[in-house]
Amino acid sequence: MKRQRHRRIAVGRRAPAGAPPGTLVAQPDADQTSIEIFGYGPKGHERKSRCTASDITAARAAWPMVWVDVRGLADTALVRQVGNLFGVHELSLEDVINVHQRPKAEDFETHVFIVLRLPPDSSDAAGEQVSLFVGKDFLLTFQEREGDCFDQVRSRITSGAGIIHNGPDYLAYALIDACIDSYFPHLEALGERLEFLEGEVMLSPSPGQVSELHAVKRELLLMRRAIWPAREMVNALLRGESRFIGKKTLVFLRDVYDHTIQLMDIVETYREIASGLVDVYLSSQSTRLNEVMKFLTIIATIFIPLSFLASLWGMNFDREASPFNMPELGWHFGYPLALVFMGGVAVAMIAYFRLKKWL
Amino acid sequence: MKRQRHRRIAVGRRAPAGAPPGTLVAQPDADQTSIEIFGYGPKGHERKSRCTASDITAARAAWPMVWVDVRGLADTALVRQVGNLFGVHELSLEDVINVHQRPKAEDFETHVFIVLRLPPDSSDAAGEQVSLFVGKDFLLTFQEREGDCFDQVRSRITSGAGIIHNGPDYLAYALIDACIDSYFPHLEALGERLEFLEGEVMLSPSPGQVSELHAVKRELLLMRRAIWPAREMVNALLRGESRFIGKKTLVFLRDVYDHTIQLMDIVETYREIASGLVDVYLSSQSTRLNEVMKFLTIIATIFIPLSFLASLWGMNFDREASPFNMPELGWHFGYPLALVFMGGVAVAMIAYFRLKKWL
Amino acid sequence: MKRQRHRRIAVGRRAPAGAPPGTLVAQPDADQTSIEIFGYGPKGHERKSRCTASDITAARAAWPMVWVDVRGLADTALVRQVGNLFGVHELSLEDVINVHQRPKAEDFETHVFIVLRLPPDSSDAAGEQVSLFVGKDFLLTFQEREGDCFDQVRSRITSGAGIIHNGPDYLAYALIDACIDSYFPHLEALGERLEFLEGEVMLSPSPGQVSELHAVKRELLLMRRAIWPAREMVNALLRGESRFIGKKTLVFLRDVYDHTIQLMDIVETYREIASGLVDVYLSSQSTRLNEVMKFLTIIATIFIPLSFLASLWGMNFDREASPFNMPELGWHFGYPLALVFMGGVAVAMIAYFRLKKWL
Amino acid sequence: MKRQRHRRIAVGRRAPAGAPPGTLVAQPDADQTSIEIFGYGPKGHERKSRCTASDITAARAAWPMVWVDVRGLADTALVRQVGNLFGVHELSLEDVINVHQRPKAEDFETHVFIVLRLPPDSSDAAGEQVSLFVGKDFLLTFQEREGDCFDQVRSRITSGAGIIHNGPDYLAYALIDACIDSYFPHLEALGERLEFLEGEVMLSPSPGQVSELHAVKRELLLMRRAIWPAREMVNALLRGESRFIGKKTLVFLRDVYDHTIQLMDIVETYREIASGLVDVYLSSQSTRLNEVMKFLTIIATIFIPLSFLASLWGMNFDREASPFNMPELGWHFGYPLALVFMGGVAVAMIAYFRLKKWL
Amino acid sequence: MKRQRHRRIAVGRRAPAGAPPGTLVAQPDADQTSIEIFGYGPKGHERKSRCTASDITAARAAWPMVWVDVRGLADTALVRQVGNLFGVHELSLEDVINVHQRPKAEDFETHVFIVLRLPPDSSDAAGEQVSLFVGKDFLLTFQEREGDCFDQVRSRITSGAGIIHNGPDYLAYALIDACIDSYFPHLEALGERLEFLEGEVMLSPSPGQVSELHAVKRELLLMRRAIWPAREMVNALLRGESRFIGKKTLVFLRDVYDHTIQLMDIVETYREIASGLVDVYLSSQSTRLNEVMKFLTIIATIFIPLSFLASLWGMNFDREASPFNMPELGWHFGYPLALVFMGGVAVAMIAYFRLKKWL
Repeated sequence: MKRQRHRRIAVGRRAPAGAPPGTLVAQPDADQTSIEIFGYGPKGHERKSRCTASDITAARAAWPMVWVDVRGLADTALVRQVGNLFGVHELSLEDVINVHQRPKAEDFETHVFIVLRLPPDSSDAAGEQVSLFVGKDFLLTFQEREGDCFDQVRSRITSGAGIIHNGPDYLAYALIDACIDSYFPHLEALGERLEFLEGEVMLSPSPGQVSELHAVKRELLLMRRAIWPAREMVNALLRGESRFIGKKTLVFLRDVYDHTIQLMDIVETYREIASGLVDVYLSSQSTRLNEVMKFLTIIATIFIPLSFLASLWGMNFDREASPFNMPELGWHFGYPLALVFMGGVAVAMIAYFRLKKWL
Repeated sequence: MKRQRHRRIAVGRRAPAGAPPGTLVAQPDADQTSIEIFGYGPKGHERKSRCTASDITAARAAWPMVWVDVRGLADTALVRQVGNLFGVHELSLEDVINVHQRPKAEDFETHVFIVLRLPPDSSDAAGEQVSLFVGKDFLLTFQEREGDCFDQVRSRITSGAGIIHNGPDYLAYALIDACIDSYFPHLEALGERLEFLEGEVMLSPSPGQVSELHAVKRELLLMRRAIWPAREMVNALLRGESRFIGKKTLVFLRDVYDHTIQLMDIVETYREIASGLVDVYLSSQSTRLNEVMKFLTIIATIFIPLSFLASLWGMNFDREASPFNMPELGWHFGYPLALVFMGGVAVAMIAYFRLKKWL
Repeated sequence: MKRQRHRRIAVGRRAPAGAPPGTLVAQPDADQTSIEIFGYGPKGHERKSRCTASDITAARAAWPMVWVDVRGLADTALVRQVGNLFGVHELSLEDVINVHQRPKAEDFETHVFIVLRLPPDSSDAAGEQVSLFVGKDFLLTFQEREGDCFDQVRSRITSGAGIIHNGPDYLAYALIDACIDSYFPHLEALGERLEFLEGEVMLSPSPGQVSELHAVKRELLLMRRAIWPAREMVNALLRGESRFIGKKTLVFLRDVYDHTIQLMDIVETYREIASGLVDVYLSSQSTRLNEVMKFLTIIATIFIPLSFLASLWGMNFDREASPFNMPELGWHFGYPLALVFMGGVAVAMIAYFRLKKWL
Repeated sequence: MKRQRHRRIAVGRRAPAGAPPGTLVAQPDADQTSIEIFGYGPKGHERKSRCTASDITAARAAWPMVWVDVRGLADTALVRQVGNLFGVHELSLEDVINVHQRPKAEDFETHVFIVLRLPPDSSDAAGEQVSLFVGKDFLLTFQEREGDCFDQVRSRITSGAGIIHNGPDYLAYALIDACIDSYFPHLEALGERLEFLEGEVMLSPSPGQVSELHAVKRELLLMRRAIWPAREMVNALLRGESRFIGKKTLVFLRDVYDHTIQLMDIVETYREIASGLVDVYLSSQSTRLNEVMKFLTIIATIFIPLSFLASLWGMNFDREASPFNMPELGWHFGYPLALVFMGGVAVAMIAYFRLKKWL
Repeated sequence: MKRQRHRRIAVGRRAPAGAPPGTLVAQPDADQTSIEIFGYGPKGHERKSRCTASDITAARAAWPMVWVDVRGLADTALVRQVGNLFGVHELSLEDVINVHQRPKAEDFETHVFIVLRLPPDSSDAAGEQVSLFVGKDFLLTFQEREGDCFDQVRSRITSGAGIIHNGPDYLAYALIDACIDSYFPHLEALGERLEFLEGEVMLSPSPGQVSELHAVKRELLLMRRAIWPAREMVNALLRGESRFIGKKTLVFLRDVYDHTIQLMDIVETYREIASGLVDVYLSSQSTRLNEVMKFLTIIATIFIPLSFLASLWGMNFDREASPFNMPELGWHFGYPLALVFMGGVAVAMIAYFRLKKWL
């Protein structure tokens, strides 16, 4: 049994307690920062990589809608600069940098601030954090890393499909939807692992399975930790209090909400099954112990009296010194009778076990 | 113990994360699509099978109320065509095709969208999904397969009974009611299985029972997964916010709501009993182990000292070499005394066990 | 251990799924139907047994208030006839006949419909269902059987006490109160059984107790299933939304509500104690096993080395063939030394056990 | 282990089900009734013991505020007489007499009716019930017994402190506060008992501890049963809907509410710790069993093969009859070799155990 | 295993039940009282230590905002004097002195009263209590001890940063934020301890781990006891009902609220993992016992029959007295045949075990 490496539930590096709000402390393993700008509108779109702050101002002037996508959060100065361009609150910037936030939605004067969390993958145990700022005419996103499940959304812009005919709220929906939907394959993989374990525990219980079940339950716990607040977040958006989410987009968000409920539902079902399997395992262990002990008891209790008898007649009392000393050893049928008697004891014992339903 | 085949908790095939909403991807095992139309009104009714989209338009013109029943969801193009005829939202169509939705009710401009789930049967582990769209003058339903528990409702139309004198909301109620009521026999069967197990666990606990209990609990979990959201769905309809559900029909839906509560109540009661039975089984195992071990202990501890004594007097110390070497072997009553002493030890042991209340 | 007969949690016989609402299917073991009428008012009262539908009409004309008490539900036609006289909804009649309803209160145009459930008794495992229809000037009740805990209420009418000076809502309160209060003795009996078991489990744990505890928990589960919705039902009435429950009667219903809370509180307390006792039992089993095994271990590990030594010196190596072969058998103090050595081993073992705190 | 005497969770003696409301049935062990009157006002106070009903009328005329304190509830006629003087509802009187009420607050026309429960003591397992009726100018209290924790409040009246300058609601607050605060020492004692048990279970687990833990959990359950509804009761008063509780007193009640929350919080924490300790005990038992069994296994498996070998060479095959019969017995170094061989087997076994990490 | 010293869940010393409200009883281990005053405003700031009551009056006159920081609560007279200066309610003063309050926020006429609790440290098991009174132009704080996590906030005042440009509500926010954030390192330490235990339980389960897990769960329980009401408290402030918390500060408090939710989330996750680990440990114990017992059973059941055979042929039946007495001892190949037979029995046993999958 190798030591299992668990995904850690990290608290995250943060400014020391008592520091003024808005103190930006980059995470030790943060990626280099790069900015990509999508300017788009009903008439077309433009994509520009490796931009600077001034590119953003230019794009906002040129296009009706702008999506500024910041990837990598090592350069806190640049992050702050971009944030200030869009009037982002200093506390929100802190949340962007300290990538251990729970999914949430917060309403501000000029935008809605949304935190998402992608499902965990091999390179990132807790799942990448994505921060979205949805304004009247802009979408500002911050990601921890290059390369993600948003590529397909990007190609939907460049293909000139629905997105360019809608506001930034619809684009934000598309990103949230892509993020939530990317949990399904992870959950399905966990489900298959659980199902396999279920068969194993039933068929051939073995010690490693409990550790395996513990690991699955732990993964489900982490899943729930990410999905539950996502559900809350989408629900908060759905309540429709934000000016920046249009009524048309709400219908689509309702669909996302359904998906989060579905995810939670599956997670809870899996958790209950996993808990039940620990019980099944424990009872199988206890059954097995019973079986083993019964076998030992039967063998032992049959032979213990027989061995005693054999030892008895192996004693060296001096038969010549007295006729009372083990006269049976000298009987004509002494040995056969002894064997018959031993057999009788064995048969009686077996009969007793049968009576007790142990055999 | 054969490997038990569990109903799988499937996540369902869906468009890849990031795909535009309304992308229809047919499930791999979807049935061929066929359409049946019921035109009806207070003055009569007409039933027409294997219809096309144009038949629907004709029927809507001819009859005050129309029930369009689409069975089999393999032909996504036809499903989309029918959906468009009735102004169904693209997201709803996605839910119709991806048959892993939880029961729900959603309000739209021109109709209410209701998802139902039939109880699981031998051919479909998760239970068939039924999607209903209730409008002012139409009912549009999508089923996964031909042949279901709605036949009796159909005959109630053709028999000219109450349904034809009411709107499509009443017909929808009749279908929902038929669907919910079809859970009762399944639950009753589970209840009988549980009751049988209860007797078995009490009378003769055996290892397979825990797996059986696990299977029953799993079934109940799946039941709850289907009934709980159905309860929510009916409750949402009951709150009476939809224009498409008449006040008169609400009284009937209240009855359906009662049934869902009753179902949930029974499911929860069964679950608690099943959980309690696992405890009973484990304690019976532990009791049995105690019993077996006590028996072994008693037999062993009586004979172990006796065997030692017999071995002792079976030693070959040279009595001729010294008068100190096992003189008891030469005593006149050595052997009888030894037997009496052994008997005394056995009696003392038994007395000790009686004192300890082990016998 | 005899097979315990559990009260069954029945789903009840019902019309097949899809049948039109209001289809009355009598339960297989329903009693013969008979009707008793109480006409009463401030000026007096009249009691009439074995009535027909026309007697009801006559009594309603003659008396300001009428209590129609229908007992036995086999005659569905008569039940429907009586129901129609008072404008009872067809779904309510279905609930009256299918006697597996949860306690509930439903508001209709002309009456409130209340379902009660008496505590289980020897003849009826689930507890008799009582259905009440409280109108402006009538009380209509349906019971499964003759003879119940309402006799004392009846005598309060005939004795000319408070009831006749109040409306049918007060009479309904009196019946509900009598029904709820009849749970107390049942709960007290369960409490005594539990208390007895508590003493037994502490003093002398034995296998049957877990089954007993399971049975008690099951009974409590059934109690809770009946009392919880009764609490909800009384609460619904208390919220005072019904026109048919007077303000004065609400004060009395608040008292009934208190009693349901008290019942729930005791049921939950008992359930927690029962669950705790299973733990106590399991730990006592595990303690006992420890004790038994420790005893066996001590006896066995003391004698096993001794027996080995005795067997060793019982070997038949040919002392004459070589001076190396078991010379100790010929020593002058060989046997006493051997005994002393054996004693030393035993003492060392016992000392070791004392050191380990096993003795 | 002596049979532990548990505090009983009594249902209480009550009028038979169906009896008219307000039927007063004295508890079998009720104390003799005596009345004490405190007349007080800003100008002074008067205390009078062993009063009659007419004394009450006199005191109400003489003083602006009157506290009538009835102790002992055996004389139901006197209780009813006093109750009627203050316009107490017949159902409230029933609650006063049947001293098994949960703490609650009920609003009436002329007064608020409050039920309190003192913490359990040696003479009263369930805790004495105190009933308060707070009116515009009177406080009417009913206690089960003489002598309680209210003495200090009484001395606060006679000392001319704050109470006499406030209305009866403030006096009622003082009594409620004294009652709630008297739970703290009881809880502290339970906490010390639990802490002691915690140390014991960790250091030297022994069977009696589980029963002890069960007893502590039971006490906590009873505590919770009393404190939880008290919290609800104070909260109900706090919501400020009663005319008889002044705004100034509400501030003080908020403090009482805080105390009830603090009590609940401690009770729940203790319960969780107690539950955790049962787990710790069970795991220590299982660890101990493992240890004992491992020891037995090691001793037994080392000596069992050795004993077999000794027995083998103790067989009596006739060496003279054939050279194949146990020739090793005649070897020159037979015995030493046998001893060496046995030692080798023992060493091999020990090595195996070391390999398996059992030693 | 040394006796673990647990942090005690203390109830706290308090005035005896029934004492008038506002009775100040200093805790036995309270520190000496000293007062520090911060006068500040947009124009500058002043810090003054070891002040008296008259210094406070002077500072309030001189500066627009004043922070009075009282440390050590032994001098109840001084505490009361300071409290009266700011119009603090006597009940609040009682809460300040009795340092066992749960975090809470209470609204008064002239201020908001906030109770905080710092995380536990080595010198204070329950965590230091901090009481804040936030008024229009003052902040009054009471701490149990000198030296805390507020030093950084103090330096933010003296550095002339944001705090001096805002009201006392912002300063209060800064203190609350510093307090809540100081929980993160504690939680992280617990998380590391748990993670270490997780690895240990999986790899090499040992008895002490359950006690360790119990200790971790206990710490988490204490954490939750402090964080949960803190969350409630911040939420109460957030609901914005207090006049003394400005709208701008609410945005910052929302961030604190997020942190409390994050803390609760981590605490609950850790608790679930810890609970799961106890299961893993128990199942590993049961697996280990199975393994040990199986080994014993195999060794014992192989050798028990062999030993019996050896004893059998060691019996001393007189072969000369009768040809029936153990003739096999005289056979030419008696001994080799006996050995072969014994070997056969051993092989059969092993084969049987293989068949049973025990080997």
